[in-house]
Amino acid sequence: MEEQRLIYLDHAATSWPKPPQVTEAMLQAALNDAANPGRGSHAMAVRASRIMFDTRKWLSKLFHIKNPNDIAFTCNTTMALNMAIKGWVKPGDHVIATSIEHNSVRRPLYDLELKHGVQVSYIESNAEGDIQVSQIADAIRSNTSLIIVTHSSNLLGNILPVAEIGELARKKGIKLLVDAAQSAGILPIDVEAMGIDMLAFPGHKGLLGPQGTGGLYIHPELDLEPLLHGGTGSQSETPWQPQVRPDRYEAGTQNTPGLAGLQAGVRHILNETVQKIHTNEWRLSQRLLEGLSGINGVNVLGPAIGEPRTGIVAFYVDAIDPSEMSFILDQHYGIAVRSGFHCTPLAHSSAGTAKTGAVRASVGLYTTEQEVDALTEAVKEIVEQYKL
Amino acid sequence: MEEQRLIYLDHAATSWPKPPQVTEAMLQAALNDAANPGRGSHAMAVRASRIMFDTRKWLSKLFHIKNPNDIAFTCNTTMALNMAIKGWVKPGDHVIATSIEHNSVRRPLYDLELKHGVQVSYIESNAEGDIQVSQIADAIRSNTSLIIVTHSSNLLGNILPVAEIGELARKKGIKLLVDAAQSAGILPIDVEAMGIDMLAFPGHKGLLGPQGTGGLYIHPELDLEPLLHGGTGSQSETPWQPQVRPDRYEAGTQNTPGLAGLQAGVRHILNETVQKIHTNEWRLSQRLLEGLSGINGVNVLGPAIGEPRTGIVAFYVDAIDPSEMSFILDQHYGIAVRSGFHCTPLAHSSAGTAKTGAVRASVGLYTTEQEVDALTEAVKEIVEQYKL
Repeated sequence: MEEQRLIYLDHAATSWPKPPQVTEAMLQAALNDAANPGRGSHAMAVRASRIMFDTRKWLSKLFHIKNPNDIAFTCNTTMALNMAIKGWVKPGDHVIATSIEHNSVRRPLYDLELKHGVQVSYIESNAEGDIQVSQIADAIRSNTSLIIVTHSSNLLGNILPVAEIGELARKKGIKLLVDAAQSAGILPIDVEAMGIDMLAFPGHKGLLGPQGTGGLYIHPELDLEPLLHGGTGSQSETPWQPQVRPDRYEAGTQNTPGLAGLQAGVRHILNETVQKIHTNEWRLSQRLLEGLSGINGVNVLGPAIGEPRTGIVAFYVDAIDPSEMSFILDQHYGIAVRSGFHCTPLAHSSAGTAKTGAVRASVGLYTTEQEVDALTEAVKEIVEQYKL
Repeated sequence: MEEQRLIYLDHAATSWPKPPQVTEAMLQAALNDAANPGRGSHAMAVRASRIMFDTRKWLSKLFHIKNPNDIAFTCNTTMALNMAIKGWVKPGDHVIATSIEHNSVRRPLYDLELKHGVQVSYIESNAEGDIQVSQIADAIRSNTSLIIVTHSSNLLGNILPVAEIGELARKKGIKLLVDAAQSAGILPIDVEAMGIDMLAFPGHKGLLGPQGTGGLYIHPELDLEPLLHGGTGSQSETPWQPQVRPDRYEAGTQNTPGLAGLQAGVRHILNETVQKIHTNEWRLSQRLLEGLSGINGVNVLGPAIGEPRTGIVAFYVDAIDPSEMSFILDQHYGIAVRSGFHCTPLAHSSAGTAKTGAVRASVGLYTTEQEVDALTEAVKEIVEQYKL
């Protein structure tokens, strides 16, 4: 019932539906190419290796990565961020992050603070999520080894000046880790031009692949301690992890069907172009922003109308609990949004919603103006009913 | 061409083909239930949560686990073993493992030896892979905190006396980690009766699920340091990983389509019964063993004919490099086997194949007597041709 008229506005969690070729590629790989890549010499294993290589190749094209083997696949962005943070930060180091980071950055850092005496400075954003490059510059210490910034807040939808932060990091000889959870496939990313040393990305959001995929780009000159140790099908006789990439960071059997789907998603994005996707999402988010802002009692988070942002529009209504709002939207209007704290408590503090949380709507590749308008109309009705 | 007449004997790497309901479940989840489990309140997210819960439930039934939430999903066995080993072993601890462990055990342990002064004793098996419980008992020290054994060697196919080792471990108050990479879905496993504190298992081998799935059972009284820190959708405001299971050990978005497929695989096994699957694979491996042993110049590894083993039969021919043998089998006979060191160098030392490696054939659910006989005939032809 809900399925037929479902208006899906939760693309910041997982994009849906996928382009048909994504699920088709998954299915074909599961049916015909499900051997272990690189671990056998038979034809199906070779085809599985080919899927992985080609997926790396298309991702490299998208992110302007010179050598596809500098991408390590992971099962999600969280694993990529853990691999980057725990693999690079040493005891006693100082790390700079921002108040709009996701818990997948904050929680690994907290663990390093607790156990390894790592110091962390969280740069406070303004209510719209903005961070000034000068704030980061001011926080640099002699033992700062890493700057971590999200490319775009998963709550506020604002976009950080990554290229400028990259320039600063390079000048100071500090490594830059970018969380592209909300920007991969949605905003242009050029790791070379933007000075990104490590890029953590999900496969299942803007890249249109299935859940269970993601990865970490690691600059060729950067040697991380591996997060996982284990079989690589290479140098089996050595008890240490081989140096050769991507084996060094990819122990164990990889998700071939998932990566086949991811490859189809990335190729679809390259055909559409990121610029076109971004322009379309911006247009839709502006339309939603205008609609919601016009409703009495609705408070919209993030950048003002006309400013850069991704397809995320979060909001709250003083008298209505966000979880109730999202429940009514789902049950009575067939609109899927997300409520709660979105794993980013400090961003809520900055936005003034630390106690209430917020409702987050997020558009995607196939979202239409009608769907966005349906949300605006639904929220309007709900707010009016509550006032009675 | 190869596809049509392919004889797939590489089930120990990844089982293939999957039961049709496995790929069907993956496809349906990717098409209809691809939201983020537990992270939204809309209907699709609820369905995704349900998939995960049910998968845990069926796995619990298979492994006799009381509480499904004591299973944490991972992307492969390697990640599960890393989670177990790095989460439990403390600096200065002593660990007992065996010479037939996979590199997914040996390499994490080597890293702990190198960086955290952990001591490791590898119990040497005999040439057939046998380990005596008394050998383990003799190796126990006052600081032994963990015993790690593979349930079945991925090279030799022999089966270790896990229940007896579990009894010893319990008596001595030492935790037992079992690597079920080659036994989950193939040999009966009862974590309670066998005294298993942690069970690492793959989704894509004997459990008939897709690649990109696996998991770790963690005894309810065992608190591991999480391998990954990040968003769980629960207690978002805290900077530490929540204590509640499975959230504590499952940060980030999980592989919903993969887990839907895994669930279908596990249900298929429960219907067939593990006992029936094991009996069938034993019968096939015995037939292959008899066939290969009868060829002059072929040396077969592992337990003798008539002894317990899984569906793995590895062999080598003095004059023929294993990689060449597997290449010819693939190209000329359409038979997929695996050659090399199988990520288990110490087992090769015990078996006397440390320099040459071996060819490994492994049967699965749909393997037929005709297929097994075709391998025997092919090897016979190849050996004869080489003698000319």
